[in-house]
Amino acid sequence: MLRGLSADGGASRFNPLVVVELASNTKEEAIAWLLSRIRDTQQNGGVELLVEQLGPGVDAQEKENPNMFLVGATWQRLLSGAEDVGLFKEFHDGSMRGFTCANKHNFKDFKGDGDSFLSMAECQYIIKHELDTLRAKDETHVPGHNQVKLYPGKSVIRRLLSKGILIQVFPLHEKEELKRLSFSWYQKVKLSFQPLDDIRHYYGEGQALYFGFLEYFTFALVPMALIGVPYYLFDWENYDKYVIFAAFNLVWCTVILELWKRGSASLAYRWGTLSRKKAFEEPRPGFHGVLGFNSVTGREEPLYPNTKRQLRIYLVSLPFVLLCLYLSLYIMMIYFLMEGWVLSAHDAEPTFWRGILCFIPSIIYAVVIEIMNLIYRYAAEFLTEWENHRLESSYQNHLVLKVLVFNFFNCFASLFYIAFVMQDMVLLRQSLATLLITSQILNQFMEAFLPYWLQRRRNKKMIRKVQKRKTLEDKELPLADQVRLEADMSTYLGTFDDYLELFLLFGYVSLFSCVYPLAAVLVVLNNITEVYSDAFKMCRVFKRPFSDPAANIGVWQLAFEAMSVIAVVTNCSLIGMSPQVKAYFLDSDTQLILWTVAVEHGLLAFKFILTVLIPDVPKHIQINLARLEFESLEALKKKKMLEASELSKTVQ
Amino acid sequence: MLRGLSADGGASRFNPLVVVELASNTKEEAIAWLLSRIRDTQQNGGVELLVEQLGPGVDAQEKENPNMFLVGATWQRLLSGAEDVGLFKEFHDGSMRGFTCANKHNFKDFKGDGDSFLSMAECQYIIKHELDTLRAKDETHVPGHNQVKLYPGKSVIRRLLSKGILIQVFPLHEKEELKRLSFSWYQKVKLSFQPLDDIRHYYGEGQALYFGFLEYFTFALVPMALIGVPYYLFDWENYDKYVIFAAFNLVWCTVILELWKRGSASLAYRWGTLSRKKAFEEPRPGFHGVLGFNSVTGREEPLYPNTKRQLRIYLVSLPFVLLCLYLSLYIMMIYFLMEGWVLSAHDAEPTFWRGILCFIPSIIYAVVIEIMNLIYRYAAEFLTEWENHRLESSYQNHLVLKVLVFNFFNCFASLFYIAFVMQDMVLLRQSLATLLITSQILNQFMEAFLPYWLQRRRNKKMIRKVQKRKTLEDKELPLADQVRLEADMSTYLGTFDDYLELFLLFGYVSLFSCVYPLAAVLVVLNNITEVYSDAFKMCRVFKRPFSDPAANIGVWQLAFEAMSVIAVVTNCSLIGMSPQVKAYFLDSDTQLILWTVAVEHGLLAFKFILTVLIPDVPKHIQINLARLEFESLEALKKKKMLEASELSKTVQ
Repeated sequence: MLRGLSADGGASRFNPLVVVELASNTKEEAIAWLLSRIRDTQQNGGVELLVEQLGPGVDAQEKENPNMFLVGATWQRLLSGAEDVGLFKEFHDGSMRGFTCANKHNFKDFKGDGDSFLSMAECQYIIKHELDTLRAKDETHVPGHNQVKLYPGKSVIRRLLSKGILIQVFPLHEKEELKRLSFSWYQKVKLSFQPLDDIRHYYGEGQALYFGFLEYFTFALVPMALIGVPYYLFDWENYDKYVIFAAFNLVWCTVILELWKRGSASLAYRWGTLSRKKAFEEPRPGFHGVLGFNSVTGREEPLYPNTKRQLRIYLVSLPFVLLCLYLSLYIMMIYFLMEGWVLSAHDAEPTFWRGILCFIPSIIYAVVIEIMNLIYRYAAEFLTEWENHRLESSYQNHLVLKVLVFNFFNCFASLFYIAFVMQDMVLLRQSLATLLITSQILNQFMEAFLPYWLQRRRNKKMIRKVQKRKTLEDKELPLADQVRLEADMSTYLGTFDDYLELFLLFGYVSLFSCVYPLAAVLVVLNNITEVYSDAFKMCRVFKRPFSDPAANIGVWQLAFEAMSVIAVVTNCSLIGMSPQVKAYFLDSDTQLILWTVAVEHGLLAFKFILTVLIPDVPKHIQINLARLEFESLEALKKKKMLEASELSKTVQ
Repeated sequence: MLRGLSADGGASRFNPLVVVELASNTKEEAIAWLLSRIRDTQQNGGVELLVEQLGPGVDAQEKENPNMFLVGATWQRLLSGAEDVGLFKEFHDGSMRGFTCANKHNFKDFKGDGDSFLSMAECQYIIKHELDTLRAKDETHVPGHNQVKLYPGKSVIRRLLSKGILIQVFPLHEKEELKRLSFSWYQKVKLSFQPLDDIRHYYGEGQALYFGFLEYFTFALVPMALIGVPYYLFDWENYDKYVIFAAFNLVWCTVILELWKRGSASLAYRWGTLSRKKAFEEPRPGFHGVLGFNSVTGREEPLYPNTKRQLRIYLVSLPFVLLCLYLSLYIMMIYFLMEGWVLSAHDAEPTFWRGILCFIPSIIYAVVIEIMNLIYRYAAEFLTEWENHRLESSYQNHLVLKVLVFNFFNCFASLFYIAFVMQDMVLLRQSLATLLITSQILNQFMEAFLPYWLQRRRNKKMIRKVQKRKTLEDKELPLADQVRLEADMSTYLGTFDDYLELFLLFGYVSLFSCVYPLAAVLVVLNNITEVYSDAFKMCRVFKRPFSDPAANIGVWQLAFEAMSVIAVVTNCSLIGMSPQVKAYFLDSDTQLILWTVAVEHGLLAFKFILTVLIPDVPKHIQINLARLEFESLEALKKKKMLEASELSKTVQ
């Protein structure tokens, strides 16, 4: 039993951090080769990690995969790994600096031999990075698997992953830590902020930034919600005041997005990811091409001509996306046609059954939208894969762009049609409310409860199995079973869907805010439950994800800003179309439109100026960063002077 | 004679690079102190430069200032200075790398003791930088000048400059080099590109980028000019085709600005300023405040609270600028009123004298505009000075912004009024042509010929004086007289006015391009003469400026882009107002405006997408930069591995 092994301490102490699962039909020699490569010293091209095979479960059956391995490392190895990945830790003066083994004793929490200096998430990230950089030496293929080709410098893990020999690599949960975190995060019912630092400690910066953004976004919407409520309660039809509300809304959207940049910079500074340099990205596992020499690293690796990729993007992907948008538009038109028929049929002879019939088009449309979203998502992933991007980040950006545009279109096209073609504000308000509420309910259900329920059923089987053999003397599962349990959990696919949901909610709040001021209230309520359900699913439903040292929310900042620009256009148009504003320009429609356009341009210019005027990084952090840079420059200068004076002494 | 002194070589060889001119009433002890501080070794807090007093001129008179000093340095000193300022030089593999004395032999043109490795402009820049970093030690004031206070760490040169003891510091011209440069630059009449590399070699990167931009801008306008000519010759009144012209124009403006970014990155990469890090900026000479500790450097220096500066900007400067804009608008209205009176008087009774009278308002308006520009420029400088910016760059940005807004308004307000309020396209075309041509002629005259003429008169006196004493055996002036001659030349105030002129010309071309396609032709012609007159004034009229290691054209890129955004708005409106387009929407003005606005938004979105899609730095330069970074990372890793293996050997 490994747990026993890890308790006895000393030289052979082994703390399992990461699980590597190979396919059950992997050849023995391939396994032996991989393990020896992982264990080999760095001078020999290995990565010097500790690996042990996972023992069989309590109720070992034939279908259990025996090829599961636990990976750990000595503390010395982890510290040198921390330097490799460029980890930032707190220095004794409170600033965050890149960790180096040479001056490890100057870091704040470094005590004794460095045990407990690195968090488990950091250790796991280091191990993942080290595994990723395990490169083939002169092997031409994986031993025992002649079809899995290798070439000098190729990342072994990525090749095994892309060929299906390596099923998954995932970090282990810490049961105690997780219990503490989940208690302070979502099990206490209390009014307080999320424990962002603990989340970051357990899940890494990327996750913590998402939850930080979710929390910030919720609080930022509270003023809009508070102003929105009296509108709902008292002046449902008074457009005059909606103008003020919309104007406030537009400025507010810009301000909160700008302030988030500052908030995110503060968080990233505190966590040491703000000034951390990005490591050189490896080609993603699925990337293929003709072997050649990388012009940056000089290493041999597959190359794929950029022009070919551009051709695929502009000649296939772009037309495909446009076609999908057209299809979506077409289906929307069919929906409105059906809606019209049904309504006229109902108006002609209002019976109960015909009343029921009224809902049919909406339901069909909603279902079709969901199906289209699903199919499109697969198509987008397939296309982006086929575009053969070299880097994961570039792949992600292209995927996000494709999915974003289509989702935006699918969700909001009907609202745009109602607002600007039909110009029916009452219908717009109803549709907006219906769409918003339905999507919220669906999301909460699909995201948290469904996976949880599935997970629970699987777990129960497992636990029952275990309990058949063991008495209830200790309630904890043995490590082997715990690992197998976690291996069976769903894989968390990143923050993509979570951000996408927030993005669409932001659209509901900002695009048509002057028509439906209650949207902010609904979104605030949704976000509060979202915090809990997201926290819950992170802790209970999914495998622990590897931490990802993000410094900001990346492409989503841009997406939200784009949305707020579109919101200026829609809101100005809506205000221009309102009867109250029209009443001021009774004599001339032209004047009205010109004024609306002028106001819109003014607002856009104002937004732009505001964006420039508010610095992206708070002053005190700018000063801290400048001070660090200055100190390192001064140190360099001093060193140079010293060398020069020593040299002159030697010469004398 | 110093020239003789510089020829004898050996240890005492002194090559004068920079001239320091002190006020003639400076106390002897202050001069002695300053010279000793400049000559002192770096360990003692000096800057280790060579200084010699300039001998009297041939025809020494009482009014000649005796306190002129020539500054130079040994080659060793210059090389270590090059490392201090972070100079990039060509490495033996053709890439540009930061120069370090440690591996100086790996740089391409480094031969022997390093003589002629640095260009004279680089040496002068290094000396200026070293002089600027000469800091007070424990002096509380300048010896002999009790009122000129000092504190430890204060830059001595900057304090002397702000107190008027130091009149000027300027680099010397190289007569031979200048002759060669000016020959290949503007004296040969031939069709070829400017010798940008030579310009950079002599004047530094900032100047070379300006001339590069001027050249690029001229070539970029050629297609527009070529398309514009047939419009002028054949279809003067055909708006239909103007629409195509304007659309082409808008896309073209975006494309050329984006391509310039790439071109500028290529130039900056070739010259080694692209990846060069900015040094810490010293406070500008005029900056004042209460002594305190700088939070970045920890040095004692004057501090000025940012909030106070913000208050000055938003409560004084901003209202002042708005007031000036209002005044400018008011004067414009008076001009149109006068124009109206005069025209009606002429129409009522057209006589010769009343015909002449018609020109009076235009002339008065033009004169008033010029006077307002002049007064405003002084006011803007005064206000920006009063805002008390700590850094020169921040001062410059605020000054540029103030001057830019006002100049834009002053030049184009009347055109906007004619176009969108009076909607008189014929008058617009006439005004545009008149303004453009007048401003071009005025500029050429004011910029080059007037200063040249003044300069020539002064020089002639000097040369006559010298020739009185000397025979014509050698035509070269002795060094002392040459230095005094250069000290008398006008000081080049930077590229501000040159860029401003280009910016306004760009406005004439792009804002109303669909009304007056010939503008591009005029601007191209103007730019061709501009190259010659600017080159001429750089070589003959002004003191040599210190080189400024710029990586791009800075805030002007933003200004040009802003102009191209405004151009989209104006051109779309003009097209929407054209009778041909109006003919398509006979039934509904509303439809026409909505379509115009839609097209405008589409174009703006397209512009934005184009900006994102075209990478700012060409691919091959990105690769080169990434390779350099990768190499330095790998070197670091190798060093670490080596240290670790040595350590393990020692332990064993």
